[in-house]
Amino acid sequence: MIVKNGRIKLQTEGRDHVIDITPKVGEIVAASKIKNGVVTVFIFGSTASVTTVEFEPGLIQDIRDIDEKLIPSNVSYAHDETWGDANGYAHLRASLYGPSITVPVVDEKMTLGTWQQIIVIDHDNRPRTREVIIQVMGE
Amino acid sequence: MIVKNGRIKLQTEGRDHVIDITPKVGEIVAASKIKNGVVTVFIFGSTASVTTVEFEPGLIQDIRDIDEKLIPSNVSYAHDETWGDANGYAHLRASLYGPSITVPVVDEKMTLGTWQQIIVIDHDNRPRTREVIIQVMGE
Amino acid sequence: MIVKNGRIKLQTEGRDHVIDITPKVGEIVAASKIKNGVVTVFIFGSTASVTTVEFEPGLIQDIRDIDEKLIPSNVSYAHDETWGDANGYAHLRASLYGPSITVPVVDEKMTLGTWQQIIVIDHDNRPRTREVIIQVMGE
Repeated sequence: MIVKNGRIKLQTEGRDHVIDITPKVGEIVAASKIKNGVVTVFIFGSTASVTTVEFEPGLIQDIRDIDEKLIPSNVSYAHDETWGDANGYAHLRASLYGPSITVPVVDEKMTLGTWQQIIVIDHDNRPRTREVIIQVMGE
Repeated sequence: MIVKNGRIKLQTEGRDHVIDITPKVGEIVAASKIKNGVVTVFIFGSTASVTTVEFEPGLIQDIRDIDEKLIPSNVSYAHDETWGDANGYAHLRASLYGPSITVPVVDEKMTLGTWQQIIVIDHDNRPRTREVIIQVMGE
Repeated sequence: MIVKNGRIKLQTEGRDHVIDITPKVGEIVAASKIKNGVVTVFIFGSTASVTTVEFEPGLIQDIRDIDEKLIPSNVSYAHDETWGDANGYAHLRASLYGPSITVPVVDEKMTLGTWQQIIVIDHDNRPRTREVIIQVMGE
């Protein structure tokens, strides 16, 4: 069995900055030399999330708009009173999207659709340095 | 270690068609001969999602209703202007539910509750042929 | 390869009771002796979910409030007519958050942020006994 760990460093702008990490995850999968297995993509930290989307400018705007509608950034949350950092909304969005996805690897390639990219959404209210943890397992 | 890949083909009706794939995932797990490990269930494409639910007609209706309330299909999204295919809402629902789940396998069986089924929700606005990628890993 | 299964038993109060299971998951990972791999955390049952959050009282209140806003508990769902158990909202919340996360293990430790805890949210409308299934895989 092969277990290979990788890390992707990101500089984000926050405020639902959406970043396509598919090429970098693909490089780590290729370097691992596994033929068949899975790759787990996990965001380190509690105000960003991982999912898939068709990565195009319209949908990136739509994600920001729907997040703002569902979990608005301009209202007060109990969390904001705990720390005074006004990012309660970012935590809630991150918990709902979730911190991890797992993608099968078959014949050395991730089984993604042509218009399906792996993204990190940084929900926080300021630019952040982010680390995404990549774990490839298989044979 | 055993790594076994499977695929489930589905014909869906779109519009939040909810399909119980538990029996088919169970067959792939059984055929893999693993005793202990995990099975990853991943939807290929960016307008459908994977989760678990108690699969009964009332909840299937409730999923459609709540998705329509949270991310309506009858309003315009920026994505719709990119491609003109009017399914921006379907992409957003898919990203929020997420493309993958991972279920433990213990003593040759998935650790699902009695009223907990693995489902695909096809959020797209038309019938689709779908592929679900199943990756079983363990020993 | 090492595959180690663990179970965490919880007594919950229901109604979006949020429970930090990070220490117990960490004990199972430590006891497994794996150095590098992944741990899958899966909730058994269809009215609770698993995600990560900064575990502090303000955010726990915020989760309850946002869940109540997005998927209210005081309206009628089709599911409630099927069984008469009035917890349709709990099923919908559980499906949207999702039943599983997968966390990488690197150098014997889960790759969680300092303010990122693994939680179970019990969305059901009454106290429940819960089982969380933990599957550790790696080498």
